[in-house]
Amino acid sequence: MNAPTENTEIQALIETYRQAVITKDVEKVMGLYADNIVSFDAVSALQFKGKVAYRAHWEACMTMCPGPHVFEFHQMDIVTAQDMAFAHWLAHCGGTDDKGETKACWMRVTAGYQRVGGQWRIVHEHWSAPFDMVSGAVLFDLHP
Amino acid sequence: MNAPTENTEIQALIETYRQAVITKDVEKVMGLYADNIVSFDAVSALQFKGKVAYRAHWEACMTMCPGPHVFEFHQMDIVTAQDMAFAHWLAHCGGTDDKGETKACWMRVTAGYQRVGGQWRIVHEHWSAPFDMVSGAVLFDLHP
Repeated sequence: MNAPTENTEIQALIETYRQAVITKDVEKVMGLYADNIVSFDAVSALQFKGKVAYRAHWEACMTMCPGPHVFEFHQMDIVTAQDMAFAHWLAHCGGTDDKGETKACWMRVTAGYQRVGGQWRIVHEHWSAPFDMVSGAVLFDLHP
Repeated sequence: MNAPTENTEIQALIETYRQAVITKDVEKVMGLYADNIVSFDAVSALQFKGKVAYRAHWEACMTMCPGPHVFEFHQMDIVTAQDMAFAHWLAHCGGTDDKGETKACWMRVTAGYQRVGGQWRIVHEHWSAPFDMVSGAVLFDLHP
C-alpha cells in the first residue's frame, strides 16, 4: 500500500519539522504548512485555521517555552499515496524551566499531508494529551 | 485532488460511525476499524493498539455515558486518494446526567482510513480537547 518514495519524503519532512521546532525557527516551521492549514493544537483553542492565526500561536508557544527542547518522536506510522499522506506518532516533549529542571511529557500527534505544486505541505495537524474521564484532569504522567 | 467517489464513501463511513455511537452499538463501531487500529482517544491512555484493547475501552466509555448522546459533527474536511483517506472535524459531544441535565462540549477529531480487501476501514483515530498552557486545565467550554 505504501509508496516507498513518498514514505521517505514524508519522513524527511517530519524530521525537518522536528529540527525546526527544536531550533525555534518559526519561519522554517511555517514554510512546511499549506496556506489552508487547519490545526488542532494541544493548547489554547479548538482550532487554528490558516497561516496567519497559526503563526501567531507558534510565536506565543515559542515565547512560553524557554530553554532547550526535549522533542523526540517515537512509534511513527506513515501511510502514503502519490500526492497525499497521513502520519501519527508519540512525541516526548519538554523544556528546561528557570530553575534548570527539565519537565517533559508524552503527547500524541497526527498529521495530514498533500503535495501542492510539487511540494509536500502539512495541511492538518492534531496534537493532544488525554484526560481522565472522571476527574477531567490532563494525564501528563503517562508513558508509552 | 479529491476523488468524488472515495469522498462520498468516507462521508458514508463517518455517518455510519456516528449513528453506531449514538445507538451505542459497540459491535457496529468495532466493525469499522482495521485490525491494527491505533487510536489516540481523548481519555484514559496515550493510545489503544488493536481491536481487543480498543473494544474494552469503547465498552467502558459506553457504560460511563448514560442517556441520549449529543454527537454532532461539524466543519468536516475529507482528503482522499484511491485507497487511503484522512478526515478531520469538530464534534459536539455530550449526554444527559442522572439529574436529566444535558452536558456537552466540543472536541476535535482526526481519522485515517485505508481500503483493506475492498472495504474502507478506520486505521487511526485521534480525539481530544485542548488544555490551557498555563493552568494545564482542559478547556471544556470552548465553542467554534
